[in-house]
Amino acid sequence: MAGKSIGIGMIGCGTVGGGVMKLLRDQADLYAHRLGATLRLRRVLEHDLGKHKAKADLLPAGSITADADAFFSTDDMQIVIEVAGGCGLISEYVRRALASGRHVVTANKSLLAAEGHDLFALARQHRVAIAFEASCGGGIPIITALQFGLMANRIDALYGILNGTCNYILTEMTRSGKDYATALKEAQAAGYAEADPALDVGGQDTAQKLAVLASLAFGVRVTGDQVPVEGIDSLQVLDVRLGAELGYDIKLLAIAEHTDAGVSLCTHPCFIHTDLPLAQVHGPFNAVSIYGHATGHTMYYGRGAGEMPAAAAVVSDLLNVASGWYPQAFAQLKLWGDADQPATLVDSDDLVSRFYLRINALDVPGVMAKVTKILGDAGISLSAMLQHEAEPGRFVPVVITTHQARRGSVLAALQATQALDEIDGKPVCIRIVDMPPG
Amino acid sequence: MAGKSIGIGMIGCGTVGGGVMKLLRDQADLYAHRLGATLRLRRVLEHDLGKHKAKADLLPAGSITADADAFFSTDDMQIVIEVAGGCGLISEYVRRALASGRHVVTANKSLLAAEGHDLFALARQHRVAIAFEASCGGGIPIITALQFGLMANRIDALYGILNGTCNYILTEMTRSGKDYATALKEAQAAGYAEADPALDVGGQDTAQKLAVLASLAFGVRVTGDQVPVEGIDSLQVLDVRLGAELGYDIKLLAIAEHTDAGVSLCTHPCFIHTDLPLAQVHGPFNAVSIYGHATGHTMYYGRGAGEMPAAAAVVSDLLNVASGWYPQAFAQLKLWGDADQPATLVDSDDLVSRFYLRINALDVPGVMAKVTKILGDAGISLSAMLQHEAEPGRFVPVVITTHQARRGSVLAALQATQALDEIDGKPVCIRIVDMPPG
Repeated sequence: MAGKSIGIGMIGCGTVGGGVMKLLRDQADLYAHRLGATLRLRRVLEHDLGKHKAKADLLPAGSITADADAFFSTDDMQIVIEVAGGCGLISEYVRRALASGRHVVTANKSLLAAEGHDLFALARQHRVAIAFEASCGGGIPIITALQFGLMANRIDALYGILNGTCNYILTEMTRSGKDYATALKEAQAAGYAEADPALDVGGQDTAQKLAVLASLAFGVRVTGDQVPVEGIDSLQVLDVRLGAELGYDIKLLAIAEHTDAGVSLCTHPCFIHTDLPLAQVHGPFNAVSIYGHATGHTMYYGRGAGEMPAAAAVVSDLLNVASGWYPQAFAQLKLWGDADQPATLVDSDDLVSRFYLRINALDVPGVMAKVTKILGDAGISLSAMLQHEAEPGRFVPVVITTHQARRGSVLAALQATQALDEIDGKPVCIRIVDMPPG
Repeated sequence: MAGKSIGIGMIGCGTVGGGVMKLLRDQADLYAHRLGATLRLRRVLEHDLGKHKAKADLLPAGSITADADAFFSTDDMQIVIEVAGGCGLISEYVRRALASGRHVVTANKSLLAAEGHDLFALARQHRVAIAFEASCGGGIPIITALQFGLMANRIDALYGILNGTCNYILTEMTRSGKDYATALKEAQAAGYAEADPALDVGGQDTAQKLAVLASLAFGVRVTGDQVPVEGIDSLQVLDVRLGAELGYDIKLLAIAEHTDAGVSLCTHPCFIHTDLPLAQVHGPFNAVSIYGHATGHTMYYGRGAGEMPAAAAVVSDLLNVASGWYPQAFAQLKLWGDADQPATLVDSDDLVSRFYLRINALDVPGVMAKVTKILGDAGISLSAMLQHEAEPGRFVPVVITTHQARRGSVLAALQATQALDEIDGKPVCIRIVDMPPG
């Protein structure tokens, strides 16, 4: 790859692909200086003719094609960028690129979360590399930090805010007291949420990114569908407000923890203390807190999405691959877990944590004695309680925070409280995550 | 370097060196798995016999020596770690290591800030690499992020909290209202400040780290002594308090900005808005905010010092060098600025910024008219004012914040106010840094 010119192909030319084209056009001199070689975008594969037209001014005539065979037969194409997203046909294209000896730079977290280990094995087999900085955390170089910067560490835990749509909505619910539906509508109007926000607000996008990061951090085999997921779409603004009174901010967290029983993974709305660095991450920003056994706590913050941040992550990968060092590192280092070693995952019921519980209780004497007896009998010890004054005889929200307890036991106890006449509706249970400050 | 065993030498075995030895001993299996090769610490060069004894249990007998010739004649020593610090003799050792074909991993910011460009040229000449993650930001992989993770960006600006001692003292002054001398004594008692804190509190340590980061970020040649420095040792707690009333936190910042006139570098106590991510960095923690033209704002946070965070940065470098990819990247990429291209630096008087000004003014009619006239005549426009009620006829602190103004003009105007009979003592001028939120 030390030659004068390096040929690039790109699959997909939507938002991120357009950003990649702009960077390659506008910063050609900078990249040629850093690399000692010229990057040439030779061919783009895109099935959507509308995108052909929209990007026509960024490429020489005829370089965009909808014909996969024409694309893969392009001469002098050493690196293939994949920014189309999704699995299925795109997976076939990525495999075809690898099998034909092309390095792949991809932004595709859903593909990596589902088929990462097979793809990495295929890449090694054909002596090429896969670079994937843009798959998690957008413009934040979190993959580079995990792969190389924290190399000396055994990673103990990782907590990430990985979806800008959710964080924008939760920030609005917290700051302005808006309910979920209103905050979602505003996020859509502001361009921070898709017309169909299901994958974002349902937590699946975050869970896929967590699978990628956990595979890398712990060197184990884990897929996106192994991550227990709870989204923000059923979150009530009442709980956001009551949590704030107790000193907590609500965040949709991707959590991976190394425990004696195995790797604990989950994606759900959590309360974290307002003093923690992650609690300061507002609006569409993303951040990841990583705890290394030697380095302690480090945090990485930035824009998790958007045309140019994502494109910059893709092009950084492209430069690192084109320079030849990344393929060498990919071949040499055991960074992505051994394909033969599936992760031992902790069942989410066995998760031990603190919890925020809210029940709707009739304000009559003796109710709390019954509720706390149920919790006590289940071995759950209480940390704090919050109930505002209410008219006697009416239902009123009562908040209880627990000390460390097994999640399964907490959920069972909550279900038992539902059988009480004095309790109305389904109780709410939100995990409280106590990250070590260091 | 693909062999089974890679020989390491280490210069210095103080705190960080001890941490490196512990990591190599305790994580030998992890590193062998990641690397596919075994790291062997063969010889340590240390002139302090006390440290020989203290570290005796971490090394085979006879492997610590005070004899440089014996050290450099060690067989099978492909990589030399330098954790002794300082220039002079240590510079000679580093040069000797490079000239004898050994890669160097160093934590030495003062050496790199003074002689980095010569050392990098020497390394290239002998086809070896210098890795230096531990030189700035301790355990935070900020060098890796700048070298590789943000590769596609033209870096526009960089703002760093790079000295844990100073940040600890400033946090105490802010939170508890202690004066500088008291906060320093407590930092010393808590182990966050040296018995002789001059290089930390005077800002030189921060300035050296800034020289390293700016060379890397902007690809220019700059040395530590080219950075204008102001420490925190003359900072008054009154200004910390008045700044807080206006919504600002005080931080000792390392600042590098790309401007049309050249690179603007400085290290001084600054006010930043309490809402900014950098304002949330408390106690001994460090953080660096980087603004890339495409990625926008990213921030990197963690422990800037301490045995294990620094040792982990050294050992991460060691693994990256030993795997062979880092030497290839070092040889291939134009990351550290061309030695022939010294930076065009903006004179600190030509710095354009907002400023916090405090004067001690007699509370009589007409004083503020005179002061504001002097500022207005100098073309300095006011943004806000703050004066608490005081007894008439007494001196009272008056705070003025400016809009964007040239620093030289502001200082000249302040000096002119000193000539007024109604002004007592030397006015205070502290820069207000308005970082873009994105």
